[in-house]
Amino acid sequence: MATTLIVNVQKTAKEYALFNDGSCVLSMHFSRVDGDCSLSTQSINGASSCQMLSQSEYENTLTSVAAQISSTIQNSQLPAVTQVIIKVAVPGDFFQEHQQITSRYLAELNKSTDRSLLQVAPLLREIKAIKKVFPEAEMHAASDTAFYATLPAVAREYGVSAELTRDLELYRYGLNGLSTSSAAARVHCVIGRDPEKSIICHIGETISVSAVSNGQAVDTSAGFSPASGFPMGSQAGDVDATAVLKIMRHKNLRPSEAEAYLDNSGGVHAIAGTSNLNVLLKKISQNDSNAVHALELLIHTIQKAIAASTVSLEGVDVLIFTGTTAVRNPELRAAIIKKLKHLHIHINEERNNTAIGNDGVISERNSPVKVVVLKSDEMREMNGVINQNKMAELRKSCAS
Amino acid sequence: MATTLIVNVQKTAKEYALFNDGSCVLSMHFSRVDGDCSLSTQSINGASSCQMLSQSEYENTLTSVAAQISSTIQNSQLPAVTQVIIKVAVPGDFFQEHQQITSRYLAELNKSTDRSLLQVAPLLREIKAIKKVFPEAEMHAASDTAFYATLPAVAREYGVSAELTRDLELYRYGLNGLSTSSAAARVHCVIGRDPEKSIICHIGETISVSAVSNGQAVDTSAGFSPASGFPMGSQAGDVDATAVLKIMRHKNLRPSEAEAYLDNSGGVHAIAGTSNLNVLLKKISQNDSNAVHALELLIHTIQKAIAASTVSLEGVDVLIFTGTTAVRNPELRAAIIKKLKHLHIHINEERNNTAIGNDGVISERNSPVKVVVLKSDEMREMNGVINQNKMAELRKSCAS
Repeated sequence: MATTLIVNVQKTAKEYALFNDGSCVLSMHFSRVDGDCSLSTQSINGASSCQMLSQSEYENTLTSVAAQISSTIQNSQLPAVTQVIIKVAVPGDFFQEHQQITSRYLAELNKSTDRSLLQVAPLLREIKAIKKVFPEAEMHAASDTAFYATLPAVAREYGVSAELTRDLELYRYGLNGLSTSSAAARVHCVIGRDPEKSIICHIGETISVSAVSNGQAVDTSAGFSPASGFPMGSQAGDVDATAVLKIMRHKNLRPSEAEAYLDNSGGVHAIAGTSNLNVLLKKISQNDSNAVHALELLIHTIQKAIAASTVSLEGVDVLIFTGTTAVRNPELRAAIIKKLKHLHIHINEERNNTAIGNDGVISERNSPVKVVVLKSDEMREMNGVINQNKMAELRKSCAS
Repeated sequence: MATTLIVNVQKTAKEYALFNDGSCVLSMHFSRVDGDCSLSTQSINGASSCQMLSQSEYENTLTSVAAQISSTIQNSQLPAVTQVIIKVAVPGDFFQEHQQITSRYLAELNKSTDRSLLQVAPLLREIKAIKKVFPEAEMHAASDTAFYATLPAVAREYGVSAELTRDLELYRYGLNGLSTSSAAARVHCVIGRDPEKSIICHIGETISVSAVSNGQAVDTSAGFSPASGFPMGSQAGDVDATAVLKIMRHKNLRPSEAEAYLDNSGGVHAIAGTSNLNVLLKKISQNDSNAVHALELLIHTIQKAIAASTVSLEGVDVLIFTGTTAVRNPELRAAIIKKLKHLHIHINEERNNTAIGNDGVISERNSPVKVVVLKSDEMREMNGVINQNKMAELRKSCAS
């Protein structure tokens, strides 16, 4: 297997991982929360480092990524990078498939920019920068919405006409599909079986709650756009469209400006003045009422989404918490669980408190619904889905 | 008690009821569904009649209402109409109270029209027409959102900044508050006790699902505007705001036009070509796939809202179906219940099938969650809340 670079550009973080023969040999995680930039690096020999960055260093991540990759390859005598896989979370049927980034793919992405989708511009910039650094590498898009292509029409469509739905592709495309499919695949290792009815709650930079039936997505809390859903970070999440139209009239915003407003001027950040959960928790310990409200609002919406997810499944066997924020915060998990006891979702306090940053079952022994904390591995999943995809393509071309 | 006229102007119906000494002596129900207009009248002696109307007769309902009231008053030797109570469902803190319609109230309503709220223009027309016919009568507004003034902040607010929330009053004001509070008060008569945790599902011209704790609203499926929520009639219901912005760009709509679009060009009507549930069910029996999808989508969203409502209550003791459509359609209720068994919500098929247009318990005997069909009496509730309000005002002025 070739040496592969995996890239994940998010709103407040950029992740890079170098894979060789299915093993991760280098990972670099750049983060920018509340204006503070940092980089944590983990290399092949297990050494890890963490450093603060200037704003311009954060903006030019590829310079340091290329240098680090070059030294890793040299030191470990690995083949050069021949494949780059980048995460794509863009609404649209075309983007709901893992595929090679060809000139047609870039043309479709550029068309999306015309429609002013906020997530497209940084993605295009990143692809351009990668092409410069790795001009020979084959580029692939790992679709963050592909996992939701199986949703039934009732979970996928809105109450607008069939014509408009089709022409504008106004579907629920879902969110965090790579993390969620990784969690769905890995839960067997933790509980020793493949659950029939699982609800997967991803809480990271963004949040989504997915109903998964025998490994297949059947419902999602996320809507058409990645900005929908929960008031996490600076995203407003779901807001009544008529209320958004009122904001537009009040602030005299055009649609593209309103889209940016919902994405950048709302959420926990707008209510409590921080996107950083640790800072938020500290403010709460100081009785900051805005911070209390922001967290309570976030938790209430997550609880409602989990309860709503039981409908498509007609119940739940396993509730999985994944995503960095969920995996690292037992208090957050306990607060979410608190109002779900009527769904037979209970946790053991001690088990919950010890599962910090590692996998584990946190429900009571013999509990009818298992509650699991699980580190999904989005970067490995991206490596996996693209190479599976390539194998499938290869099989298809052999058969024809 | 004076003779009181109660008025309820909806999108596809207008209802009038004449009350004397707490008794309804005349009721007239005008309806316009899929372009067909009709009037059904029930008079003091129990006589009822039904007739088709022309479009212009539907538009000038007050002419026939005034004539019918005049003959009822003459025949029954009742005092003249001295009080008119009209239902108001307009977003805004000012409108979340039952109160007299004064010149200030009209000024506030007119201000709302500037903000282009669709429900205001027909309301102002109706108030003007009533003033012409009953110039001496005192006019009162029965607020359809007052019941939701008790919602906690987590259920009432969106993920936008505190400043914007306050300045633009971007709260969840709820919907069908008069019907829901009537059902909450009347359930005692049907089950012999006041439930602690009830979920009240109103399905009429509009739909809402309310979580009610010991008689008080604690959560609602409805948002800022009455057009939010479910894809009922020609309303799109909840649509991702970013998707709405895409529709605006595609159709080149201004905010007010987008608001009208969501209100008039979506929902079951846009998908299946009819707002009439009976026609929809007939189309389904003829295997019309659009009709099947429209009903399934509607049911799925209602099921998810019921499940989500259990969060604030941490369970449910009683599920109440109210509103004309829910009360008259056992098939619809059975379809909704179908995927809620894991919430211990079961119905007895025979009981469900016989509860058509009348009150009744439709769950199994000894079921942990009671399921109740209940005719809410919105018109009587309007009469009640205003007169209670007046009594309270009177007591306050006596005390001071």
